[in-house]
Amino acid sequence: MEFDTIAAISTPMGEGAIAIVRLSGDQAVEIADRIFSLPSGKKLSSKKSHTIHYGHLKEVETGEVVEEVMVSLMRGPKTFTREDVVEINCHGGLVSVNRVLQLVLRNGARMAEPGEFTKRAFLNGRIDLSQAEAVMDLIRAKTDRAMNVALNQMDGKLSRLINQLRQALIEVLAQVEVNIDYPEYDDVEEMTIPLMLEKATWVKSEVEKLLQTSSQGKILREGLSTVILGRPNVGKSSLLNSLVQENKAIVTDVAGTTRDIIEEYVNVRGVPLRLVDTAGIRETEDIVERIGVERSRQVLKEADLILLVVNYHEELTEEDRRLFDTIQNMDYIVVVNKTDLTQKIDIDEVKQLAGERRVVTTSLLQEEGVAELEEAIAALFFEGSVEANDLTYVSNARHIALLHQALDRIQDAITAAEAGVPVDMIQIDVTRAWEILGEIVGDTVQDSLINQLFSQFCLGK
Amino acid sequence: MEFDTIAAISTPMGEGAIAIVRLSGDQAVEIADRIFSLPSGKKLSSKKSHTIHYGHLKEVETGEVVEEVMVSLMRGPKTFTREDVVEINCHGGLVSVNRVLQLVLRNGARMAEPGEFTKRAFLNGRIDLSQAEAVMDLIRAKTDRAMNVALNQMDGKLSRLINQLRQALIEVLAQVEVNIDYPEYDDVEEMTIPLMLEKATWVKSEVEKLLQTSSQGKILREGLSTVILGRPNVGKSSLLNSLVQENKAIVTDVAGTTRDIIEEYVNVRGVPLRLVDTAGIRETEDIVERIGVERSRQVLKEADLILLVVNYHEELTEEDRRLFDTIQNMDYIVVVNKTDLTQKIDIDEVKQLAGERRVVTTSLLQEEGVAELEEAIAALFFEGSVEANDLTYVSNARHIALLHQALDRIQDAITAAEAGVPVDMIQIDVTRAWEILGEIVGDTVQDSLINQLFSQFCLGK
Repeated sequence: MEFDTIAAISTPMGEGAIAIVRLSGDQAVEIADRIFSLPSGKKLSSKKSHTIHYGHLKEVETGEVVEEVMVSLMRGPKTFTREDVVEINCHGGLVSVNRVLQLVLRNGARMAEPGEFTKRAFLNGRIDLSQAEAVMDLIRAKTDRAMNVALNQMDGKLSRLINQLRQALIEVLAQVEVNIDYPEYDDVEEMTIPLMLEKATWVKSEVEKLLQTSSQGKILREGLSTVILGRPNVGKSSLLNSLVQENKAIVTDVAGTTRDIIEEYVNVRGVPLRLVDTAGIRETEDIVERIGVERSRQVLKEADLILLVVNYHEELTEEDRRLFDTIQNMDYIVVVNKTDLTQKIDIDEVKQLAGERRVVTTSLLQEEGVAELEEAIAALFFEGSVEANDLTYVSNARHIALLHQALDRIQDAITAAEAGVPVDMIQIDVTRAWEILGEIVGDTVQDSLINQLFSQFCLGK
Repeated sequence: MEFDTIAAISTPMGEGAIAIVRLSGDQAVEIADRIFSLPSGKKLSSKKSHTIHYGHLKEVETGEVVEEVMVSLMRGPKTFTREDVVEINCHGGLVSVNRVLQLVLRNGARMAEPGEFTKRAFLNGRIDLSQAEAVMDLIRAKTDRAMNVALNQMDGKLSRLINQLRQALIEVLAQVEVNIDYPEYDDVEEMTIPLMLEKATWVKSEVEKLLQTSSQGKILREGLSTVILGRPNVGKSSLLNSLVQENKAIVTDVAGTTRDIIEEYVNVRGVPLRLVDTAGIRETEDIVERIGVERSRQVLKEADLILLVVNYHEELTEEDRRLFDTIQNMDYIVVVNKTDLTQKIDIDEVKQLAGERRVVTTSLLQEEGVAELEEAIAALFFEGSVEANDLTYVSNARHIALLHQALDRIQDAITAAEAGVPVDMIQIDVTRAWEILGEIVGDTVQDSLINQLFSQFCLGK
């Protein structure tokens, strides 16, 4: 395929030692030749592929030096996009890198859309769709485990499994064809049905196995949306600080909002907790009041995990009981804090209210009980799970939805076959299942979906 | 010189398409060989310098794949540090890049200190100190002009000028030597003094010229610390938004504080305004109340420019007059806002209070008057200044202080010479001036100062 030449800043925005402006396309080298001067006076286009060159970027008209750079030349097809790629390494810093990008755009490149480099890798056939999606998961991974899931997927593990299943379905369809071609022989159908059922049942069980990994996969990929809840002064911000201090926290400024929503990720024994509205907790020590009843209900509704904090040194109040009541159907852990003070709370009542949920006692002031809390969190989400590096997790919501759809179609086919429905009816369901699985790897997927998927990528990838 | 092998993440922290872990030192290639597998099975060390290679990073013990990477091999001395440099380009994302860094550190590299790569470039003689400092200025540049100043300095323009001045001082010292060697000849002294004076006067005038660029240089480098001041509801946050919207804003999260201080830079016709405490303005619309009297006085004291906003639709209040009084000795511009409403303010009184300062009327609601305000800001700081790209600006506070010290010593020498003080007394001052100028380029500078300077750099540079 042939495309125009695109360019983007491929390193995160911010002050750093190095920033990269990446070009990809037929004219990448030609554009670089126009603006890049080697000390020798030679052209970049005269150089071998996969080599690095020192020199200066200059304005074409004035010859004015724009930056001192290192330029990497990589000719297709052995590149990320399979096209000619030129990477300009310039001094980090916002002005510098913007200036380089502007120069490149003025000289014939087009600003890349988010994900467009990876999209080209997909459209040029270097990777399939699930591998392309894994590229983004890799960048967004919040824990080692999540990164391993993404690495495996990028390596094509999920694709290979999906393709095996599709192959099995093709074989089912071949059996169906036999029946349709020779409808006059009843014995063919008698022989065929068991064979079809066997294959379909195998595909069904494999899809089910994949779906079993999905809830963990999704948590690994997106993090557990976690809310710290409790009355004022029970120690919510202390709990937040403990979790953040003991684990490496990653603060993400949600784009465009600057100060409104700050997400903080903490890695608790491999479980990425996405702490919601931590800014609110830090500032006011009262999430419920600050965000208002309406908004707080919404936050709670979207939470995967709630840490409900109550005060060891006070009797339970009506407000505490109301909080228990509000979250009664959710996953939560009760944190009874301030055990450094005298006990006034009725622990039995707490346990009764909590039902089967874990109750952990802490003194955050004296840094006691945090380890137990972390164990409780890990246990809640990874109880009994085997940590196998080579396990193929399904983590992507799109894949999970497609697997569910495919499972339904296969189940329909099995039920129909068992009920003695004519095989050409069964064909429809099996074909649909094959198509749905194809959407995961991008084999049977529509352009609009592809565009939408890649638009969620970050710029420069 | 020989150093151990250092490593650091050289791209800004955050989610991006590409991140780089850089290694520099004798063992850089050896360490890469240990952990990096090429598809061909060959070693990186067998490859030519300045080439790029695709492959996988693996754990040495388990062979587990850590990342899919592109590795750039650059052997010294044609590198940034003059040492062997290996750059590992991995998928952006915090977990990925941290994992790569950890792997490299476990296999023999030492975590680099901030600025240590540039420090090595200096210690290995590739650049002098003022060029090294320009590297950091380049990264932090907030406008094109600031970047040009840094580029010129990095290119060695300031260094060459300083070295010329030092050469002239050496010649003065040579004259002095002649006098000391032949004290018996009075006529030598008679001949020498005018020659000495001529050279010293030339050095003095050159240093003065440099210092004349310093206030603008400093603004270009550090930005104009700007405070928007005014009573509640006069339109401070509207003014902030107008400035930010019309110009590209750069929001900097000050490290470690996350939400406490957010600086916003806007580029107003080449003048970088560093808007102080914009978060405070956005949140409460009342900077003075929010930060408290003590703190607000401090903020005002450190400001280079104040934008005092008053309400066109209200009479001046006592509070307005107090604000005028507080900032009476500072650089400020008065913004009379809300001209879309009826006039109730006494403009003549405002002008009288403002004295020689500019008074600009705006309707921020209707987006009127912002261009005039921007003109006023630019005029205040660049009135009559020639925008010459090749002008050597002095922008660094350390350089400015040293130039002032050198100027004092040269002035002392000139005064002494004119007063007929014995030449060997003059020698002391001239030598000291020569040494002081040497500190700018790093020729006569102490280790402790070098360490301190580079510690202000960002990591990975």
